Amino acid sequence: MIAAFAPATVSNVSCGFDVLGFALDAPGDLVIAEPSSEPGVVIRAIEGDGGRLSRDVGKNTAGAAVAALLQHLQAARGVALTIQKGLPLESGIGSSGASAVAAVVAVNELLGRPASSAVLLACAMQGEVAGCGAAHPDNVAPSLLGGFVLARQVSPPDVVRLPVPEGLACALLHPHLRVNTGESRALLGDMVPLKDAVRQWGNLGALVAALYTSDRALLARSMVDLVAEPKRAGLVPGFYTVKQAALDAGALGASLSGSGPSIFALTATVADAERVGAAMQVAFGAISDVGSDLHVSLVGRAGARVVSLP
Amino acid sequence: MIAAFAPATVSNVSCGFDVLGFALDAPGDLVIAEPSSEPGVVIRAIEGDGGRLSRDVGKNTAGAAVAALLQHLQAARGVALTIQKGLPLESGIGSSGASAVAAVVAVNELLGRPASSAVLLACAMQGEVAGCGAAHPDNVAPSLLGGFVLARQVSPPDVVRLPVPEGLACALLHPHLRVNTGESRALLGDMVPLKDAVRQWGNLGALVAALYTSDRALLARSMVDLVAEPKRAGLVPGFYTVKQAALDAGALGASLSGSGPSIFALTATVADAERVGAAMQVAFGAISDVGSDLHVSLVGRAGARVVSLP
Repeated sequence: MIAAFAPATVSNVSCGFDVLGFALDAPGDLVIAEPSSEPGVVIRAIEGDGGRLSRDVGKNTAGAAVAALLQHLQAARGVALTIQKGLPLESGIGSSGASAVAAVVAVNELLGRPASSAVLLACAMQGEVAGCGAAHPDNVAPSLLGGFVLARQVSPPDVVRLPVPEGLACALLHPHLRVNTGESRALLGDMVPLKDAVRQWGNLGALVAALYTSDRALLARSMVDLVAEPKRAGLVPGFYTVKQAALDAGALGASLSGSGPSIFALTATVADAERVGAAMQVAFGAISDVGSDLHVSLVGRAGARVVSLP
Repeated sequence: MIAAFAPATVSNVSCGFDVLGFALDAPGDLVIAEPSSEPGVVIRAIEGDGGRLSRDVGKNTAGAAVAALLQHLQAARGVALTIQKGLPLESGIGSSGASAVAAVVAVNELLGRPASSAVLLACAMQGEVAGCGAAHPDNVAPSLLGGFVLARQVSPPDVVRLPVPEGLACALLHPHLRVNTGESRALLGDMVPLKDAVRQWGNLGALVAALYTSDRALLARSMVDLVAEPKRAGLVPGFYTVKQAALDAGALGASLSGSGPSIFALTATVADAERVGAAMQVAFGAISDVGSDLHVSLVGRAGARVVSLP
């Protein structure tokens, strides 16, 4: 019996819409894999999802990801999965991707690690397609690999691991709202003004340079999203107020996490993230009766990992 | 009497449309500055332009750049400029920017170097506005600073110097065609498909990462321009044939330089650039009766510099 943990991720990192994500250290999802007498995959149990996730292997991201892995390895083994959701669904922090990643990492360990990271990434993405209808490496890649990951290309996936400046941390506010990913994407439209696109890739290039040079001032200047944030801000009542509260409290930058509703802020230290996160939660609470959770974490370098069961 | 040299530059580097440029070592423009009894700037002579450039200080990039510098420094000095054009006009290799940069570097040296690089950059950009109607740091910044430069923001200029992988070289083919920058820009239109823009900034982020890690394979994969090259390729008859010849001869990537008509290829070594350039020139000659020049150079780390006069 092997357990693996895969962390939450922030994707669409400001100017890095659809290409840049990073992992937290925690929270995340845990998947326990054990041999099963019947060939293929079964989902033994899912905890923490309020009964909302499908137990049908073909419709569950973790199940489908493991099925893809077994098929890739031509393994005739049977595997039973127990999924412990630590991440809320549809929160914009990579919940479905984390389950898929934890599942393939656990099963790969159970089988003696036959698969490379590239194979695990491809299988986790297949799991997301089955569970969510679409896959993008900007959630599963950082959850698997840790740190910042740039998805240069989706198919076939070509991902680039980027360095994490020492101490860089994240405050993540999860308002208890539902945002439908498809509707959130539809808000963006199909076309973007060229002048905005140019500024977006200028900022993204600068953000990548800032990660390599640990230039926190440049990181802050480059965290400008002209494409997604202006269209999606209305999904979260009080978004701009929360963002301003984060910046006023010392955040390097802040934006929507994934397609929302969560809001992330990057900070130079964990202490900054504690202060920034508290300010974000207070600001949101002053505007909305909707509850919220706050997570504070270093940007997670480790990514998914096998863990001991208690 | 002080002379300064400023090198040719390649801007719009593939996926880095409007934000990324790099300098060559040579060729370039030379500007000689000497004290003059009359306050302000005069242009004493221009050589190598076939009489096409304005001798009117306010309409000449070098003259206007120096006027901006003297004004910034509140210097009551008089300066006379002699401009030796080593770069052809309207060739897409930063000719007007190089004159402006060489002029401010020469005059700054003459005055005892009172101005910072940031001031020289701003003044050279003002010179380009006067001479060309518009300024963009992606030519003047690499000509001034050397290497690859990312222009995160135009106004006020915020530029990021990027590292140059050891040995990285450039073959630059200049077909003797005229391309009007304004018409070349009009071809682009005002809007771009979001899906193309996303791929463009994914590629640009990867290209920046490739420069930091000297990953030549990633550099090659990321040199894809979905935005400008497809619209502008028709400006240069045989563009795609020349590009393919460059790739077949071992180039990491190739695209239009600036708004054309020049075509650049990046290569891992100068020897590769010699071979790639020859292949490009042969391919162009097989298609067109128009003549062409070929320049082969390391990517220039030095940028503009004061030089001794013979």
